[in-house]
Amino acid sequence: MQRNVSRREVLRGLSATPIALATSFLGPQSNPPALPAPPALRVDSRKLRERIESLSVFGRPAGGTFADGVSRTAYSDADVEGRRYMMAEMKGAGLQPRIDPAGNIFARRDGREPSLPPILFGSHIDSVPGGGNFDGDLGSLSALGALEALAAAGVRTRHPLEMVVWAHEESFAFGRGLACSRIVAGDFTPADLDEVWNGLRRADAIRKIGGNPERIAEARRDKGSQHCYLELHIEQGGTLERSRVPVGIVQGIVAIDRYDATITGVANHAGTTPIPERHDAMLAAAHLTVAVREAVTRVPGRQVGTVGHIEVTPNSPNVIPGLVRLSVELRDLDSQKLAAIMDDIRARSREIAASTGTTIEFKTMARAETATAAAEVQAAIERAAASLRLESSRLPSGAGHDAQMMARLGPMGMIFVPSVGGVSHSPKELTHWQDCANGADTLLHTILEMDRIG
Amino acid sequence: MQRNVSRREVLRGLSATPIALATSFLGPQSNPPALPAPPALRVDSRKLRERIESLSVFGRPAGGTFADGVSRTAYSDADVEGRRYMMAEMKGAGLQPRIDPAGNIFARRDGREPSLPPILFGSHIDSVPGGGNFDGDLGSLSALGALEALAAAGVRTRHPLEMVVWAHEESFAFGRGLACSRIVAGDFTPADLDEVWNGLRRADAIRKIGGNPERIAEARRDKGSQHCYLELHIEQGGTLERSRVPVGIVQGIVAIDRYDATITGVANHAGTTPIPERHDAMLAAAHLTVAVREAVTRVPGRQVGTVGHIEVTPNSPNVIPGLVRLSVELRDLDSQKLAAIMDDIRARSREIAASTGTTIEFKTMARAETATAAAEVQAAIERAAASLRLESSRLPSGAGHDAQMMARLGPMGMIFVPSVGGVSHSPKELTHWQDCANGADTLLHTILEMDRIG
Repeated sequence: MQRNVSRREVLRGLSATPIALATSFLGPQSNPPALPAPPALRVDSRKLRERIESLSVFGRPAGGTFADGVSRTAYSDADVEGRRYMMAEMKGAGLQPRIDPAGNIFARRDGREPSLPPILFGSHIDSVPGGGNFDGDLGSLSALGALEALAAAGVRTRHPLEMVVWAHEESFAFGRGLACSRIVAGDFTPADLDEVWNGLRRADAIRKIGGNPERIAEARRDKGSQHCYLELHIEQGGTLERSRVPVGIVQGIVAIDRYDATITGVANHAGTTPIPERHDAMLAAAHLTVAVREAVTRVPGRQVGTVGHIEVTPNSPNVIPGLVRLSVELRDLDSQKLAAIMDDIRARSREIAASTGTTIEFKTMARAETATAAAEVQAAIERAAASLRLESSRLPSGAGHDAQMMARLGPMGMIFVPSVGGVSHSPKELTHWQDCANGADTLLHTILEMDRIG
Repeated sequence: MQRNVSRREVLRGLSATPIALATSFLGPQSNPPALPAPPALRVDSRKLRERIESLSVFGRPAGGTFADGVSRTAYSDADVEGRRYMMAEMKGAGLQPRIDPAGNIFARRDGREPSLPPILFGSHIDSVPGGGNFDGDLGSLSALGALEALAAAGVRTRHPLEMVVWAHEESFAFGRGLACSRIVAGDFTPADLDEVWNGLRRADAIRKIGGNPERIAEARRDKGSQHCYLELHIEQGGTLERSRVPVGIVQGIVAIDRYDATITGVANHAGTTPIPERHDAMLAAAHLTVAVREAVTRVPGRQVGTVGHIEVTPNSPNVIPGLVRLSVELRDLDSQKLAAIMDDIRARSREIAASTGTTIEFKTMARAETATAAAEVQAAIERAAASLRLESSRLPSGAGHDAQMMARLGPMGMIFVPSVGGVSHSPKELTHWQDCANGADTLLHTILEMDRIG
């Protein structure tokens, strides 16, 4: 993590920046009036909190409270209800939400210069099973709050503004994530609509949330069709909290390589098969899991590797497992480093297979490339945070976000706010309300910073 | 394994033994007639094979053949049908099968001396899911074949003879095995009837197979109520096949200690949680699985240890597992050795917990004590095999059997026949027909040997 602005710098910048911000709404050509610095434009933090609490009801465990988190998985009834709530709030704020053919919710506010491409910003509201109330929700509701703040202040930007609530961000439904921003980025074929998950056809899933699979191709947007894409999100890690920095400027979203390892041994009786004659797929899986950790930590850096999923056959206490499938997931900003780590894991797996009398095969399940945040957007976030007297620092995003799909279409940037204890994808996920407010304000002012450019 | 009878000894014994056997039916007091040795009494091997093939139909996968094995799990419809087939065959052989309150099928053939306790012999016909056609079936149908052979030869034993088809031997239903012989051995409380598994109450399960849960206490038998218990079974290991010995004399059934390890870490995002901050329950489980193997192989001997079952929460490729439960199962004839191995595993688990930032707790799930086969029954099996010119050897049973419950009531002995490749609990389970026939004949002659004693 690299600190961008020292506390002294922030204090030094205070007298000038809010004025520059307040006046920039009039357009770059106007002269700043000789008045004392007005309070910086802010997102209504009370309303933001109320909305996060209201949205948390959809997918809440029966009889639970806010602290019990949500299971608002994509295409679930709770998801449909949550989306309905979002659209009602958007309408209440004077916006006209529309659902694109992929199921994403968009709303636009015109700018002063109709020929300019829009500034797009938002997040998602679907969750993992047993998820928390901040992942996605904060960014989605802050996007709405930012548009409201501008409307309340009578500020008209140069660029059109467009907020988005992405559908199906989490990788639970259909075993994939970023599913509907991916369609907008053009990474989609009509055959994908025929995918079936839990008895649900993907076309029907998209229809359930108000999308139009027949016109799915129209959801695609062209490269350069937006001025930039911005997303506020909780960090989901503990870096900001530990360093007591309220605003994170994302340098990029890490590459993710996901593999399935299939370990084949021989299922046999746990009592009658002597140790030397075993071909124990579970033992091989255990060695492989340890090998993944060793390969990941052998080289310095922030890279991570996880064995999170395992399926054992027959999975009975009295049978030596004959077949194990497990996931190996590697993440880093440097995809070449990931390839080298995987080479190391493969080499070790050959030794493990030989010593356990099993075979180990790897299949590449998914590969997400690094998505770099545009330098000018990172700089705009930095200026926005400084204008709000908020210290900021740069860090990678270890999690995938719809922003990485939008990075394919134009400049992208992400704002992170601290996650208490770094906990996420859990009901215990928590971001303090002050940090939520800081994030929303930083989003608002980044929009304004980006509006001054290009 | 210790060879009991050399080939030379077997050949030497040939001239005398069949006569001794053929004449022993007349009682020990009679003098052998001076005739040439008649052919030894045999179980009808053709009929035995036909019955094994006929029984295999119940629980066979749809569209499968004999080679596809069976899923005749206890209390399933296939189990009920298989039991109905057994009882029809028993009736066809002139027996009067009755179901005891626990669901076990018994049939009795009177002896010449009504005051003597019966010789009990049999096995089971339920299978594991995806099991084979020999585990249990061979011993059950050979018991019937032995009674038929005696009837056909007009041989009346001194002791009453009683065959049994135990219900619910495999540990699948209700997560336990040897369930109904256990009731006969008196290891049962009325509360056990209220257990529920897969929506099925145990009382209803027992009722489904014709038992009478209201009178369950009457299934109990007293210590000494039988002369001995005999069971023919496939070895399920590869020892006999490798040493080319057709008959195994079981020295005892190993003690089994089964533990559940609960490993508690912290579930967190696989992308955003740096390696040093992880509390990865899967990594700890992997180290523990390796530690089990190491502890088991650190000391010489035949002991085995298996991690066969694992449950991971949340079990998603992109979440660091926060909770893992896994089974640790240890087996050996020497239960003190098992305790020492478990001490070793516990010590290692404390190191693993410390190094992975997790906690590891063990819960004892089941403990089966060593069941020693009675010396006189082992000797009787040895004589029976020798009389049939079959080489035999002694070995432990690594698998649990109803015989261990019967060992609580009186002298017990088991006859093993070779399993091809040592494969069991699998559709690939196979015992050559000649070995099946040898085993059935050895059972028949062991009955006769035991009938001469006591």
